[in-house]
Amino acid sequence: MTLQIGIAGITGRMGQLLSEEVAAAGAVVAGGIGRSGDAEALFSASEVVIDFTNALTAERHAELAARTGRPLVMGSSGLSPAQEAAVAAAARSVPIVYAANFAPGVNLLFALAERMAAALPPEQYDAEIVEMHHRQKVDAPSGTAIGLGRAVARGRGRTLEEVGMESGRDGHTGPRGTGPIGFATLRGGQVVGEHTLLFAAGSEHISLTHRSFDRRVYATGAVRAAQWVIVQPPGLYDMKHVLGMA
Amino acid sequence: MTLQIGIAGITGRMGQLLSEEVAAAGAVVAGGIGRSGDAEALFSASEVVIDFTNALTAERHAELAARTGRPLVMGSSGLSPAQEAAVAAAARSVPIVYAANFAPGVNLLFALAERMAAALPPEQYDAEIVEMHHRQKVDAPSGTAIGLGRAVARGRGRTLEEVGMESGRDGHTGPRGTGPIGFATLRGGQVVGEHTLLFAAGSEHISLTHRSFDRRVYATGAVRAAQWVIVQPPGLYDMKHVLGMA
Amino acid sequence: MTLQIGIAGITGRMGQLLSEEVAAAGAVVAGGIGRSGDAEALFSASEVVIDFTNALTAERHAELAARTGRPLVMGSSGLSPAQEAAVAAAARSVPIVYAANFAPGVNLLFALAERMAAALPPEQYDAEIVEMHHRQKVDAPSGTAIGLGRAVARGRGRTLEEVGMESGRDGHTGPRGTGPIGFATLRGGQVVGEHTLLFAAGSEHISLTHRSFDRRVYATGAVRAAQWVIVQPPGLYDMKHVLGMA
Amino acid sequence: MTLQIGIAGITGRMGQLLSEEVAAAGAVVAGGIGRSGDAEALFSASEVVIDFTNALTAERHAELAARTGRPLVMGSSGLSPAQEAAVAAAARSVPIVYAANFAPGVNLLFALAERMAAALPPEQYDAEIVEMHHRQKVDAPSGTAIGLGRAVARGRGRTLEEVGMESGRDGHTGPRGTGPIGFATLRGGQVVGEHTLLFAAGSEHISLTHRSFDRRVYATGAVRAAQWVIVQPPGLYDMKHVLGMA
Repeated sequence: MTLQIGIAGITGRMGQLLSEEVAAAGAVVAGGIGRSGDAEALFSASEVVIDFTNALTAERHAELAARTGRPLVMGSSGLSPAQEAAVAAAARSVPIVYAANFAPGVNLLFALAERMAAALPPEQYDAEIVEMHHRQKVDAPSGTAIGLGRAVARGRGRTLEEVGMESGRDGHTGPRGTGPIGFATLRGGQVVGEHTLLFAAGSEHISLTHRSFDRRVYATGAVRAAQWVIVQPPGLYDMKHVLGMA
Repeated sequence: MTLQIGIAGITGRMGQLLSEEVAAAGAVVAGGIGRSGDAEALFSASEVVIDFTNALTAERHAELAARTGRPLVMGSSGLSPAQEAAVAAAARSVPIVYAANFAPGVNLLFALAERMAAALPPEQYDAEIVEMHHRQKVDAPSGTAIGLGRAVARGRGRTLEEVGMESGRDGHTGPRGTGPIGFATLRGGQVVGEHTLLFAAGSEHISLTHRSFDRRVYATGAVRAAQWVIVQPPGLYDMKHVLGMA
Repeated sequence: MTLQIGIAGITGRMGQLLSEEVAAAGAVVAGGIGRSGDAEALFSASEVVIDFTNALTAERHAELAARTGRPLVMGSSGLSPAQEAAVAAAARSVPIVYAANFAPGVNLLFALAERMAAALPPEQYDAEIVEMHHRQKVDAPSGTAIGLGRAVARGRGRTLEEVGMESGRDGHTGPRGTGPIGFATLRGGQVVGEHTLLFAAGSEHISLTHRSFDRRVYATGAVRAAQWVIVQPPGLYDMKHVLGMA
Repeated sequence: MTLQIGIAGITGRMGQLLSEEVAAAGAVVAGGIGRSGDAEALFSASEVVIDFTNALTAERHAELAARTGRPLVMGSSGLSPAQEAAVAAAARSVPIVYAANFAPGVNLLFALAERMAAALPPEQYDAEIVEMHHRQKVDAPSGTAIGLGRAVARGRGRTLEEVGMESGRDGHTGPRGTGPIGFATLRGGQVVGEHTLLFAAGSEHISLTHRSFDRRVYATGAVRAAQWVIVQPPGLYDMKHVLGMA
């Protein structure tokens, strides 16, 4: 049987990509609504629902998932603690994947970064993170770069605040510390996102690089999560579970 | 107390590097022998022994480790199955680390490659391996590149023979297969060893790169293994255990 | 005054990109025709014409350029020697840019490669070329990679045939030669085109990398050629002249 | 005839490397002095002299070169304007190569950077420079990175001060400017020096990377300058002339 996927948030660029990726995965779009629309009918008509609307509708969609027994892939962002609690409550009766970033590669990156850091002691391996984004980006380092830094610190049994950041080196910096994580930022062109994590010792360098080429990767990841979640027991999952990295 | 490390194979370049790395790690060289020398006295004088001699002495050194109760780091290569069995037998009464390659980064690379491959399905992510070595190297791809390929295949629940290699593309190749692992080889200068494993999908690329700068890295890894093995129960370990990746 | 650019070959993907890039450059599309259409009216209405139709119309468009005194950017490919001669004849009375590849970066790459090779003697610097393209590409190395190899050989006062290629290394290769250029090929994902030229000596590596992200780069280059050619004396030019690298 | 090369500054690490590189180039060391020693005898016994002593002896060595008619490769650094003037005066009667950095690759890098910048307009191509050095380095960006920035600005007909630097991005940076050159700094391990210059447009990226592995590269360049200078007319040259990039 072909998997019937409902899409909440089918209008706009992301909805278009989701529709294309559903088809590319050999599934079908069972129905779709924009920010308004009959969500209850959507859940009834679908075997699983992907929700990329917004925080305001997250609670109602989670409740509908629980009530109709339809697994849910929750991609809306910016949820308040109360909204997150509602999602978690629904996940007691139906499986839900809830993630901040559905790109498989980015989630994999975080998991690998933590393992690398656990294996490479800070006394010998300096950790440096370089990121590049398009020229319009207004802040530095990127959220993903900081997420990488947190993963490195976690792998070393610390927090990023504890190990410290050396970000934006310029002028008289003094020698590099042992322990802090370095951050360097490039801006230019229309780069969607490139991140490199480098561990540098005297005799060897080990690095991990992720390059995003378009936002389609988020849709691909969400469809993959939908295919995975339909055979899971009730529970709250994130992309690490989908990728088998949890 | 400062750790007392004995070195079998203290002469030559590798022995020199081991001595330096023992000191750099805050331990001391309790004694050293070349290919001949009083091995029994060496074991008695040491808390742990690092052996980088050769396959011929491996069996005797393993037995001495068991008899004297001294943990052993076995770095000799080219052991026959009988010699390996003798090492395994000794490891029933004393902890022994036995590894083909002590470079922490290379062992980490294999472990990460397997996990990446498990998370990134071959239908979407093409796996390519590029390696570069000095101009004198006479074969291609390198053993480490092939080892990486094996790790990728293993992560996908297959063998390298099953998934297939696309190595040395030249001329009319036809389109790339789905599943085979690509290998590309560079030669030039005096490169000690560089390996990159790339997973390429349409929307994202994820890559892992290791660069070796000198053979000291093997000595560093062996000393690290010595520091780790002294507090382990009897058993046969490899570098994945030392690195916490097993 | 805003530059009035006519487009022959305005239908299809390339025509669309040309229209967008004309606007992005602050010029206007004075008119456009597909493979058929009133070419004479197009030339009359334009200050300069960009032609991305095909070899069959190249001769007639070149003659029209000469007759109407309108500079021409000829991007049609696969011209026969007779068709090329017609373009050259027209260029005696009007400036014409005729190029096989309008991507500024690729033309720059060839020019830089030649200069690098002239400065870095083959006895000390091994030249290696790595390219990556999408999984559908059926031949290796790419035409651009071979073009890079020709540029390196030329910079060393030889031909590529004279220096030789080490392409598709696999199995027992023997040590690298001194002089031959190495080629390595990667295939995967939907990579539009990546090329790296590396000069490797014992103490230093120097490399040049070009990455193409979409075919728009050809349109950007053609519009740039149009802006450049309108103030040139009659003559036959290529992209090196436009880029100031000739 | 084998070239007879004298070395002023033959003691210490750099002198050792020079001696080795003279031999590697098929020339012979005609004689050598440390910071003191009979310089006049050295010049008389040599066909060309390489001087890596210090600024204090530069003037006397330049005068000796002129008086004995021996070409000179001047590698001492930190010369005052008066000392530089003395070198220039001597160069009116004998050929002298005087350079701040003898690494062929670094000099090539500067020359290529200028040409790239001249071909790639700042409205379309954002220039970014990334450098990495060992953990002990106390300032950022490196002198070579700033030199690269100057070369880019020069290629665009401006000075670095005029185009501006975006160095050490951190926090709320606002969107990237059009024209300024970006600088990013990594520190870690024992990296001798790595520099990348990237031009990023929406459709293509072009980058140039230099990696230094050891200080031997300066000796190699100095010996190459010696072999080149002996057949030149009197005059003051730098490494660009030696490399044929002037």
